[in-house]
Amino acid sequence: MLRQAQHEITIASRGRGFYEFTDEVALLLRNSKIQTGQVTLHLQHTSASLLIQENADPEVRCDFERFFSRLVPDGDSLFEHTAEGDDDMPAHLRTALTAVNLTIPIVSGRLALGTWQGIYLWEHRTHPHRRHVIVHFIGE
Amino acid sequence: MLRQAQHEITIASRGRGFYEFTDEVALLLRNSKIQTGQVTLHLQHTSASLLIQENADPEVRCDFERFFSRLVPDGDSLFEHTAEGDDDMPAHLRTALTAVNLTIPIVSGRLALGTWQGIYLWEHRTHPHRRHVIVHFIGE
Amino acid sequence: MLRQAQHEITIASRGRGFYEFTDEVALLLRNSKIQTGQVTLHLQHTSASLLIQENADPEVRCDFERFFSRLVPDGDSLFEHTAEGDDDMPAHLRTALTAVNLTIPIVSGRLALGTWQGIYLWEHRTHPHRRHVIVHFIGE
Repeated sequence: MLRQAQHEITIASRGRGFYEFTDEVALLLRNSKIQTGQVTLHLQHTSASLLIQENADPEVRCDFERFFSRLVPDGDSLFEHTAEGDDDMPAHLRTALTAVNLTIPIVSGRLALGTWQGIYLWEHRTHPHRRHVIVHFIGE
Repeated sequence: MLRQAQHEITIASRGRGFYEFTDEVALLLRNSKIQTGQVTLHLQHTSASLLIQENADPEVRCDFERFFSRLVPDGDSLFEHTAEGDDDMPAHLRTALTAVNLTIPIVSGRLALGTWQGIYLWEHRTHPHRRHVIVHFIGE
Repeated sequence: MLRQAQHEITIASRGRGFYEFTDEVALLLRNSKIQTGQVTLHLQHTSASLLIQENADPEVRCDFERFFSRLVPDGDSLFEHTAEGDDDMPAHLRTALTAVNLTIPIVSGRLALGTWQGIYLWEHRTHPHRRHVIVHFIGE
């Protein structure tokens, strides 16, 4: 019989960077006892992203930061929306260039992630923020 | 008892820019009487995007346009696919850099969007177009 | 009565480029007999993407490659994660700039894609790879 379950995960970021929370989602899944289904993650913010990326080599995430800092520079003179800080408009753009929601199948009671895939909150603001992720399971 | 409902929203764009349709989705949700579930939005085009972004300060959307116009310039000499206009290939690329489908949880009968999140059609072509969004609800 | 079905599609890429697999998904859908519902596709990799894009003019995909090669150059001196090759870090970044999962509604037994939309694996590594896509149907 198909059923649903919903949760909220709160992540206290310490400013710009990656915060993996694959284990938190996996734990909620285990408690839900769903064997076959899918989970949707939705981040309720416009200046941070959800990203599935390599969880092996931390250098990868450093290069992500370097690349995005060059692609969308803080304090770029192009921007008119500057009242909330040099990093605010870049944070919105980084968010649009990535994603705020993800849907992942559940197969045999586990997230159908690849071997190297981890689920990250990517904080784009330089200051710490409390970020909220809605977790929606559907399955049986 | 889990059930589904499907609708189509048509948006007549007036050319490049942002068209918020959060209220149209919220109204369909209200009529569906679904309290717990999720909604998937799918845009049936390859030169416009769906974007969840800040709905407070309109300057943010102006900066989005400025940034993407610099990132993917109309009429860039790099492009060979130019038969449909200077803005056509950039429109495809902007679409790939953002998204054409979104899935948003439904909690207590409401879209689980954050305080500042609105749902936008982002038209990338300079001329007006009629854009179709398929709306799929599942829940109870 | 709502039900689910899951499959895995394996795509043997011949290196960087686009591999359409819309027909494989449509065939699985036909066999599932689902008339109303949705399908989620999840790619289990961090250096390739899933992309919905124009399936008419092949020049479009050539321009995609040209644009992304300029945006995220192979062997860029910015990158420190170079142990796996000049194309590895760019492949991760291209993946983050696009998507690894998609959810598409099913209307009247068909994928609710637009006339010009095809579903592609976009391989970002220069060498051939075997890529796995998990396909999750829910509907009735």
